[in-house]
Amino acid sequence: MEEEKGIVKIKVFDLETDEKIVLIRRDDAEKLDLKSQDKIILQSKEGKRVYATIYISNVVEEKNLVLVSNNLAAEIDIKDGDKVKISLAPIPKSIQYIKKKISGQKLDANEIYQIIRDIVDGHIGPVEIMGYTLAVNYVEMDMDEIEALTRAMYETGNIIEFDAPTYDKHSIGGVPGNKVSLLIVPIVAAAGLLIPKTSSKAITSPTGTADTMEVLADVEFDVDEFKEIVSKTGGAIVWGGKLELAPADDIIIRAERTLGLDPIPQMIASIMAKKMATGIKHLVLDIPAGVGTKMTTVEEATNIGRLFIELGDRLGVRVQCGVTYGAQPVGHAVGPALEAREALQALIKDGPASLIEKATSLAGILLEMGGKAPIGYGYALAKEILRKGDAYSKMKEIIEAQGGDPDVKPDEIPVGEYHYEVYAPVDGFVTDVSNIAVSAIARAAGAPKDRGAGIILHVKRGHKVTKGDKILDIYAERSTRLQDAVGVLHSTRPIIIEGMLLKTIPERPIYTYFSQGSSSE
Amino acid sequence: MEEEKGIVKIKVFDLETDEKIVLIRRDDAEKLDLKSQDKIILQSKEGKRVYATIYISNVVEEKNLVLVSNNLAAEIDIKDGDKVKISLAPIPKSIQYIKKKISGQKLDANEIYQIIRDIVDGHIGPVEIMGYTLAVNYVEMDMDEIEALTRAMYETGNIIEFDAPTYDKHSIGGVPGNKVSLLIVPIVAAAGLLIPKTSSKAITSPTGTADTMEVLADVEFDVDEFKEIVSKTGGAIVWGGKLELAPADDIIIRAERTLGLDPIPQMIASIMAKKMATGIKHLVLDIPAGVGTKMTTVEEATNIGRLFIELGDRLGVRVQCGVTYGAQPVGHAVGPALEAREALQALIKDGPASLIEKATSLAGILLEMGGKAPIGYGYALAKEILRKGDAYSKMKEIIEAQGGDPDVKPDEIPVGEYHYEVYAPVDGFVTDVSNIAVSAIARAAGAPKDRGAGIILHVKRGHKVTKGDKILDIYAERSTRLQDAVGVLHSTRPIIIEGMLLKTIPERPIYTYFSQGSSSE
Repeated sequence: MEEEKGIVKIKVFDLETDEKIVLIRRDDAEKLDLKSQDKIILQSKEGKRVYATIYISNVVEEKNLVLVSNNLAAEIDIKDGDKVKISLAPIPKSIQYIKKKISGQKLDANEIYQIIRDIVDGHIGPVEIMGYTLAVNYVEMDMDEIEALTRAMYETGNIIEFDAPTYDKHSIGGVPGNKVSLLIVPIVAAAGLLIPKTSSKAITSPTGTADTMEVLADVEFDVDEFKEIVSKTGGAIVWGGKLELAPADDIIIRAERTLGLDPIPQMIASIMAKKMATGIKHLVLDIPAGVGTKMTTVEEATNIGRLFIELGDRLGVRVQCGVTYGAQPVGHAVGPALEAREALQALIKDGPASLIEKATSLAGILLEMGGKAPIGYGYALAKEILRKGDAYSKMKEIIEAQGGDPDVKPDEIPVGEYHYEVYAPVDGFVTDVSNIAVSAIARAAGAPKDRGAGIILHVKRGHKVTKGDKILDIYAERSTRLQDAVGVLHSTRPIIIEGMLLKTIPERPIYTYFSQGSSSE
Repeated sequence: MEEEKGIVKIKVFDLETDEKIVLIRRDDAEKLDLKSQDKIILQSKEGKRVYATIYISNVVEEKNLVLVSNNLAAEIDIKDGDKVKISLAPIPKSIQYIKKKISGQKLDANEIYQIIRDIVDGHIGPVEIMGYTLAVNYVEMDMDEIEALTRAMYETGNIIEFDAPTYDKHSIGGVPGNKVSLLIVPIVAAAGLLIPKTSSKAITSPTGTADTMEVLADVEFDVDEFKEIVSKTGGAIVWGGKLELAPADDIIIRAERTLGLDPIPQMIASIMAKKMATGIKHLVLDIPAGVGTKMTTVEEATNIGRLFIELGDRLGVRVQCGVTYGAQPVGHAVGPALEAREALQALIKDGPASLIEKATSLAGILLEMGGKAPIGYGYALAKEILRKGDAYSKMKEIIEAQGGDPDVKPDEIPVGEYHYEVYAPVDGFVTDVSNIAVSAIARAAGAPKDRGAGIILHVKRGHKVTKGDKILDIYAERSTRLQDAVGVLHSTRPIIIEGMLLKTIPERPIYTYFSQGSSSE
């Protein structure tokens, strides 16, 4: 039960943290019967409430005063000198439901809602969320639970309504270089459909769509600004984080990523909840399959696709899935600035086949769903929109609406000034380009935080190379990062060339990847 | 890789927290390329090192100064004005081993050691520990892993050596009122064996052995004090927490208890590691079995016992297990002061049969293991030692050595001044006394924090009661707590009386528990 403790004055201090913190003097804590690390509720005079953790500290100088962290003050609109009511928070109801899931039982909709509510309210924290995530990971959830989870995540965030039906493309990720959204959004918008794309920043990958777009324009907008951009241009590519759509997702991801977890029921519900929150009724889902992606086999990818379609049916969202080739990076560029360059180049004139084909195939499905092309003709229409330059014109509108420079040319986009080149050590055919190694090197080079860091692949699977051909460029903004990336390069195999010797004794393929490199500043 | 960032001056501030905290100004953080919530290493001029979390905050007034929490300063012996080196901590190696366990694989000894090392060093925190715990819970561990875990926990803490072989009794818990250690230790010590008992404070139960003993004497000693007490009296009952034996256990428990977890491999390893750390070579293990204990059935308890015996064989500890009746509380008293009264009374003159029988049976096994009684005669010797008053004399010595009053009488021990009585609503036989309900009521009444809070059971299973007989007393130190306890009483069934009607239609037992109560102050 919530137990009222007393009224105190507050002073705000800046603390960069995810947690909401209150500091109290020891004597005041004893007077109010509060222990350090107790979970409390702070209530403003206007009745706004927030969960916080209280700590006993001697940095508080006055009696009857508590210091509150700025994130907390912002949430309930309080400022220095304001009075707040402190109560001891009740034990979160969701704890028993998480325990129930841990023990292997099915949860009902109310129980799931309570878990998500407590996560969004900050009533439970990362430790409990880790428990919840692993329970979902091991015990799994059936479709009733996934539906309830999706609705709970949707209902506990902002909901944005548009005047016309909206379309969207989502990739479940895992393949580096996947800048297709920067082509799909302008193609679909140029055809006259609304495509209000919200996207994420990279967590474990070298760049997310929002990171790449941010090289060209702003991506952080509030709900009204976002709606205005979409109503002006028909499309947008913004960061979802600021819009507070299904905010439980970001909180859960922060806990999950500590151990690299991403259980499927949670992943599916998170994606669909965000799409529902922008009123999406037609969704094309890109499911890359292949080693190094989230779905190792086509079968796995197909199963996930079926779950999305069934969930979409229950929620009134029409879903079509494209299982795409994901066993190597898309296009040649990996990293925010390098990918932005490649996407822009593809819109202006031409780009790698893997990028163009994938983008126009997925865009084509949306054009068919929206009645802009007959079934079977969406792909051709998408290609035509791209070829005619309509997609590029639309992209310039979108960049301008999002506060960027619409006339920027690909080679004007700055990339890291430190770079390292890798050459083929032997003649042969490229038998593998490793998603995992490419991502690891690009991240070590500084991506996504250092926008100019990343990789250019000069060869892809099946290409023939001659000893001494350049096969890879690494870019970094800082020399230490370049060194880190080269270190990772030496311990991984981003590109595998199989020698074309007709016979070796003992008989086995020769796997090599590089033997020389030159560093330039 | 560990990355050196720079040297800064420190100022200590008090903050009551489990985490080790460093606060830094924004400009200094930018200069050192540190982000808020980065994990860092602080190193003193003397080379002592500690992991900490850094937060950007405006409470730091000077440049080139960081504020460090007092727990951190104590750990590496630094004070205001000292200079420390800050480095960015490398990614903990244990993360990949925890992920490996999550994915279902067996860990080798080095991997397990690294997890425990990182836990003890604070290199990984509660979120990762929750992940580890649930992985152990779902994936389990085989005996190789449990042995490695035990050794890792033992090696990462203090190790205490005694001059003679040492004996111990441990209960795996779950049954309320289990104050048997307060009888067993003096019985065994009176027979001339060394029994340096370390025990825990209650986490989820109404009292732990250390809480109960603390009513009679101090329980917090450092290693030298502990050794001195044991060398003087042959026995001791102290809190293990301050001795830093297998300190990983306390840290893991703090994370686990958020969701009430206690996976069996972790529990077994924790117990054995602590016993090894005090050089125990002979251990009798009390495994209560029954509804409401950790082991619901005798079969489960037997299986756990076998695991302990096998692990003991591998570690050179002779283990004998007693599966004990745990389906209802031991004795009549539950709660620190009430249990201390009951134990003392049993030593002085007499006590409930369930307490005397259990204590002398377990003590008897230790007397046989130590060669003080032939096999089969330990129980009789234990009873004799108790009857003659030798155990009470020894207990007085131990209380005095631990700084308590050896002459305290049971009824001089203060109990809560607020109390509530429960009467039998019908004639009949007691068919059940619920461990879970009894614990919940005692905890709601304030136990273990409020030492005088708890329960006296006036009836146990099989007792015949007449309508209006007093069956239960609840004690509390605060009136609000008494109300809470009565609230829990009304929503649980601590005592079930089956009416002795010969026949009911429809045929079913009548479960009732109480209908009237009187509150006195």
